[in-house]
Amino acid sequence: MEYYSNQINRLISELSSLPGIGAKSAQRLAFHILNLPKENVEKLSMAITEARNHVRCCRECFTLTDDELCPICKNAERDHGTIMVVENSRDLAAYEKTGQYNGVYHVLCGAISPMLGIGPADIRLKELLTRLQKDADEVIIATNSSLEGETTAMYISKLIKPTGIKVTRIASGVPVGGDLEYIDEVTLLRALEGRREL
Amino acid sequence: MEYYSNQINRLISELSSLPGIGAKSAQRLAFHILNLPKENVEKLSMAITEARNHVRCCRECFTLTDDELCPICKNAERDHGTIMVVENSRDLAAYEKTGQYNGVYHVLCGAISPMLGIGPADIRLKELLTRLQKDADEVIIATNSSLEGETTAMYISKLIKPTGIKVTRIASGVPVGGDLEYIDEVTLLRALEGRREL
Repeated sequence: MEYYSNQINRLISELSSLPGIGAKSAQRLAFHILNLPKENVEKLSMAITEARNHVRCCRECFTLTDDELCPICKNAERDHGTIMVVENSRDLAAYEKTGQYNGVYHVLCGAISPMLGIGPADIRLKELLTRLQKDADEVIIATNSSLEGETTAMYISKLIKPTGIKVTRIASGVPVGGDLEYIDEVTLLRALEGRREL
Repeated sequence: MEYYSNQINRLISELSSLPGIGAKSAQRLAFHILNLPKENVEKLSMAITEARNHVRCCRECFTLTDDELCPICKNAERDHGTIMVVENSRDLAAYEKTGQYNGVYHVLCGAISPMLGIGPADIRLKELLTRLQKDADEVIIATNSSLEGETTAMYISKLIKPTGIKVTRIASGVPVGGDLEYIDEVTLLRALEGRREL
């Protein structure tokens, strides 16, 4: 690429290594950055390195945070007896955005996947069991509705059931606003199985 | 956003201030960055600040570069008598990618736009005229085919014509592979006006 100078090329190639950013967007972003005031660029670059350097897992629930305990685990007003098990911090955020869940979380940092060679020992399951030895009323399994998520959910429920703690799984079915015509068969069957009396 | 810690929130908000990156992509990028090895994050952040700090305009053609002269203006094998006038460095790169143009460029850093209050004095027109006082055989106007680009093209051609230097405008018409059925009327009329004998 003779048409850009070295540092511009380097910036473009660094940006295009990010997920979902192709060559064109990387170029667009690079020129946007080159035209920003210096202090904004400094802020962007600081935010990147500082977040990466300071972020670690919450001691209790293993979500990514920059303190020892995440804001949710710290919050005394939340119901610490209800633990929702999710695959990662983004799934946690998705439920937090609903604003209706008042329990706490447990982030597995992955899901069991024989295909990718990820076994039960590779995700934060031991830590979940340790947490359950303190008081817990209910474990809500909110892993994804994928093959890996379902496998993980099965595995966890089998693991916890013997302890007598209530284990539930979030419902699977037709999404709100979904048109039956465009929904896959597996989901339709799940929705049928999970039907409730009105 | 209680669900993420401060530094993660800051990173997400910095990323979502970039063009074409919405809240969802910013979140995805942020977690990608948090999971990268530290040295890669350092490289990304360095590329951003270094490019911004070192990049300046080429003394000759005003494209963004990190040296006094850009690689194209430095190249003695290019035809320095043919100057293609473009709006910005990305447009320059678009023509460079064709690999068929052997002249040099002049980057206006904008286009005349009465709507946005950008007049002829706000773009690198004076610098173009200064360049033309040295030898120049042809000025190819390759501003965009938008209202602003066309206005700028008209203005430049009127400015240069009295000097006796040949001024041309890149052709406007049906793009290669384009289906007439889906092409707007203005383009169809342009293509008709610009028809050539076979």
